[in-house]
Amino acid sequence: MTRFALTIEFDGRPFMGWQRQAHGPSVQEALETAAHAITGESVVAHAAGRTDAGVHALAMRAHIEIEREIEPFRLMEGINAKLRPHPVAILSCEPVADDWHARFSCIGRAYEYHIVNRRAPLTFESGLAWRVPKPLDHDAMHEAAQHLVGRHDFTTFRSVQCQAASPLKSLDRLDVSRTGDRIVVKAEARSFLHHQVRSMVGCLALVGRGKWQPDDIRTALEARDRQALGLNAPPDGLFFVRALYPDDVSD
Amino acid sequence: MTRFALTIEFDGRPFMGWQRQAHGPSVQEALETAAHAITGESVVAHAAGRTDAGVHALAMRAHIEIEREIEPFRLMEGINAKLRPHPVAILSCEPVADDWHARFSCIGRAYEYHIVNRRAPLTFESGLAWRVPKPLDHDAMHEAAQHLVGRHDFTTFRSVQCQAASPLKSLDRLDVSRTGDRIVVKAEARSFLHHQVRSMVGCLALVGRGKWQPDDIRTALEARDRQALGLNAPPDGLFFVRALYPDDVSD
Repeated sequence: MTRFALTIEFDGRPFMGWQRQAHGPSVQEALETAAHAITGESVVAHAAGRTDAGVHALAMRAHIEIEREIEPFRLMEGINAKLRPHPVAILSCEPVADDWHARFSCIGRAYEYHIVNRRAPLTFESGLAWRVPKPLDHDAMHEAAQHLVGRHDFTTFRSVQCQAASPLKSLDRLDVSRTGDRIVVKAEARSFLHHQVRSMVGCLALVGRGKWQPDDIRTALEARDRQALGLNAPPDGLFFVRALYPDDVSD
Repeated sequence: MTRFALTIEFDGRPFMGWQRQAHGPSVQEALETAAHAITGESVVAHAAGRTDAGVHALAMRAHIEIEREIEPFRLMEGINAKLRPHPVAILSCEPVADDWHARFSCIGRAYEYHIVNRRAPLTFESGLAWRVPKPLDHDAMHEAAQHLVGRHDFTTFRSVQCQAASPLKSLDRLDVSRTGDRIVVKAEARSFLHHQVRSMVGCLALVGRGKWQPDDIRTALEARDRQALGLNAPPDGLFFVRALYPDDVSD
């Protein structure tokens, strides 16, 4: 039995999310089905994060266990071949210790949220970014974002379905930057609550539009009340970009 | 009658190319149909370049003429609304002089060709880049590309269907650069022959793989013979990125 760590890129548009669902396609099911086709084994995949429907990943980390002996490269190539035509690709595959767990060993997660701030409808990026037609002040958004950095009770920014034991989380980074009509929000933490990034981005967009002042973000945070949330951003623009583990040399 | 200059972004995947075709959807037809729906007029669109099936545009320029009075912004918004669900968007619309012609007034065209140099299948970019699994030496590709810059007979790099009067063209720029696993080829000229960029990129990829030496590109060029072409790159990675006109202040 060998445990393999995988790096996975996927386009979330056709999926109900990472986690296997009775009522629709999931990335987990696509991956497990492909791994079964290659190995003949029942494979269960564990991921660093359980992304929602329509959320994407540039480098999700996951692990699987395989009984038979197989070279990591051959396993990766085989799974990639069997994953077609799903928009899911294994970017790396390496053997890891039996106690390495994609979710429980993970000590840091990073997301990016992409907003395209323009009037024109999206073409290439339909479903891959949130289009906001009216001008957004990204400097005000960045200023507001700094109120959320640190250790806080994020109840306001948490889905009512969130299953985390505590709403207390430490947000290490929340940066807003613009290049042309693209605004990227970068969020880093050990872990996030359900819908936390989308909820933070939704409120930042209200600041960007001038409907909220940067300080209103702090008021919403301190309310510790989901009703104080201004807006939950759509899943389209959200990308899981990085998972960090203790043994990673740099990231 | 007012002539409007348009800037158009389109995802070429579902189209037979820019030009109206009897046997399949075209960007021109989608645009003309949308403009007709807004104005009630028979509209003919002229573009700076006639892209092939599967080729994309970040900023194609085109013009149309409209009889009725209409504000440019309202015309753009109306066409964009009617273009749905086609992946085509008008990014700008402005009135121009009656002798401004998107194709004949154009004095410069720029393309980018995107190669993703990795083993894993493409997800987000399936149909939007050329995936080359084996390692490419981008420095050798750039060196080879410089043999093509300048005024030459590009018969080798010209489709047999090319309708240009002469195979003589001046290539102003052909730069190859890499960021991570992405290799971008930037090509600029007053105008290009049919399939010229794809043919040049195909041969550069042979150099990148080490199957050709950089000098072999010059040999192929000097052969002035389509049979000397090594490889025609697929349309997937090709983007029309810029058209230049005499009145443009900077571009």
